[in-house]
Amino acid sequence: MSSKLNVLLIGAGGVGTIVAYGIDFVGKSNLSIVVRRDYERVKDKGYSIDSVDYGSLSGWKPQKIYSDIDAAADSRTPYNFVVVCTKNLADIVKMEDLVEPVITPEITSIVLMQNGFDLGRPFFTKYPKNVVISGVSHIGSHNHNGSIVQTQNDKSLISYFDNPNLEKSLQEAETKKFISIYSNEKNNCTYFPDAKWYRYRKLVYNATLNTVCALTGVDTGRLELSGGLESLSIPAMHEVIAIAKADDVELPGDVINAVVHSDDGDWFEPSMRVDVKKGNLLELEVILGNLLRVADELQVDAPILTVLYNLLKVVQFRLKESQGMFKLPEKRHVKDKIYK
Amino acid sequence: MSSKLNVLLIGAGGVGTIVAYGIDFVGKSNLSIVVRRDYERVKDKGYSIDSVDYGSLSGWKPQKIYSDIDAAADSRTPYNFVVVCTKNLADIVKMEDLVEPVITPEITSIVLMQNGFDLGRPFFTKYPKNVVISGVSHIGSHNHNGSIVQTQNDKSLISYFDNPNLEKSLQEAETKKFISIYSNEKNNCTYFPDAKWYRYRKLVYNATLNTVCALTGVDTGRLELSGGLESLSIPAMHEVIAIAKADDVELPGDVINAVVHSDDGDWFEPSMRVDVKKGNLLELEVILGNLLRVADELQVDAPILTVLYNLLKVVQFRLKESQGMFKLPEKRHVKDKIYK
Repeated sequence: MSSKLNVLLIGAGGVGTIVAYGIDFVGKSNLSIVVRRDYERVKDKGYSIDSVDYGSLSGWKPQKIYSDIDAAADSRTPYNFVVVCTKNLADIVKMEDLVEPVITPEITSIVLMQNGFDLGRPFFTKYPKNVVISGVSHIGSHNHNGSIVQTQNDKSLISYFDNPNLEKSLQEAETKKFISIYSNEKNNCTYFPDAKWYRYRKLVYNATLNTVCALTGVDTGRLELSGGLESLSIPAMHEVIAIAKADDVELPGDVINAVVHSDDGDWFEPSMRVDVKKGNLLELEVILGNLLRVADELQVDAPILTVLYNLLKVVQFRLKESQGMFKLPEKRHVKDKIYK
Repeated sequence: MSSKLNVLLIGAGGVGTIVAYGIDFVGKSNLSIVVRRDYERVKDKGYSIDSVDYGSLSGWKPQKIYSDIDAAADSRTPYNFVVVCTKNLADIVKMEDLVEPVITPEITSIVLMQNGFDLGRPFFTKYPKNVVISGVSHIGSHNHNGSIVQTQNDKSLISYFDNPNLEKSLQEAETKKFISIYSNEKNNCTYFPDAKWYRYRKLVYNATLNTVCALTGVDTGRLELSGGLESLSIPAMHEVIAIAKADDVELPGDVINAVVHSDDGDWFEPSMRVDVKKGNLLELEVILGNLLRVADELQVDAPILTVLYNLLKVVQFRLKESQGMFKLPEKRHVKDKIYK
């Protein structure tokens, strides 16, 4: 029996595969992964990876490969870490329910390498004594029909979502333990003490530029030239900053300027804009939905973000329909409701 | 020399051609038209029309056909009526400037058979002593490569935009004179006493369903099912009603219910949604822009309509670029501005 830690990674696509390889590269874990779409090929031939961090590899496989989470739960020893690298579509699948078969209470630490805000909350309710780790990854990596092409260094900031039922020191130690099995001389993985601050900082961009570009179909450069940056996104950034402040998070005084200038020189299309263009579902609930729930609890007005959220919910409905998630009748049903 | 009235119609497309034919059918006018895109074919072969009102016709021509407005201005006798049936894209071409060559002060009455709100105002400034007539057309008619196919009866409500420099009785008489040269036993053209009321009534639909559907890419049925009708469009209708009230226009108590149920049974795509889908420019300024200018003057808050307007201005920018109206450099220019 190995003294290594048992690690399960869920969602081995563009980003997840590089995270998995990084963990395997360190060599302190028994690494299993869940691969849905590419299961047969990966099981058979392993991964082909072309990586700025690790070079060109072919046929790489972790110790175990599962086609779904239930299969991964057959393992006799509990997982020390379950690392989730899927998209976070909380209006379709709740992450805390998805991972249930592989979580052992008090034992398994859950690592959410995902976009979004306030992701820990539903886990604290469902798994009150488990540590929930926050991973924010700045990486460029894509899955081209099973070939992973990583064009940008795997740079990640690892923190914990502060679980009120657990000591901070325990959560910090567990977070650093995860870093010790993932950080290596090829990637750039560091501890960041305050997940909440960092997630708010990211929202200054994601809640305001991602969303407006997704609705209007432009990149951030065209958004600036068309006037939308100043009429919509910057006022919306002030709403994010006000919610953060009411939530005891003080963002830097120059955060708006830094965020706007972060795309300097590029006609950059934010990920949510790309998702709409490609017909992919939006990570709307974990970006705007969670933020507006906090705003509501703290009684902070966010009129622009609220309109953006309500508009994007309609877009999400359209995207779900276009993905065949539901079908409408040819003749529209007439509601006898009286509208006021 | 004829005792008939001199009439010039600008924009003889799907709707304009049926209006022109209706005027010619009455036979009380010397009718000229301006046709830009189809000029050569119409000059040569006339119009082919398949009409629910007038039957099948081919080779119809009015008395004179011009390729542009300057050519139409060569006429030695002034026009009694200039009937404008073009789209109203006020951010691209100002209608009051476009028609200048064919307007004779104090003589020419200008008939705006166009979508939009508060269309008279710029004309009153530029032509203080001319009558400006409002025509709201409920017609289904399209131009298929020069063939006009009219599928829905030409039903129109004719009023005047109240010019503060002129007597109401004069404006009413002039409006009725226009009806007398246009109304016939085939169409359905009636006098409506209050253009302002009627244009506000139309905005309850156009400012709130057109706009939200244009931004989200759905029809009004899907808007209802996705929740956007109740989260966005109905609250926006209340904003329209509040602006109208501050502007001394009382809309009926059941207007919202009537507007919502007007599409019962249909998955109806409002015209602005169709425009975005086809890449056509939006009549944004005359629908939302003019309304929000009035709201601003009357100090009525319209937070949802304002966000919709600012978003659609970004969409309009994108549509202009896609139509080749401007070209951006490959490398984005960096502004050294400090954003706050």
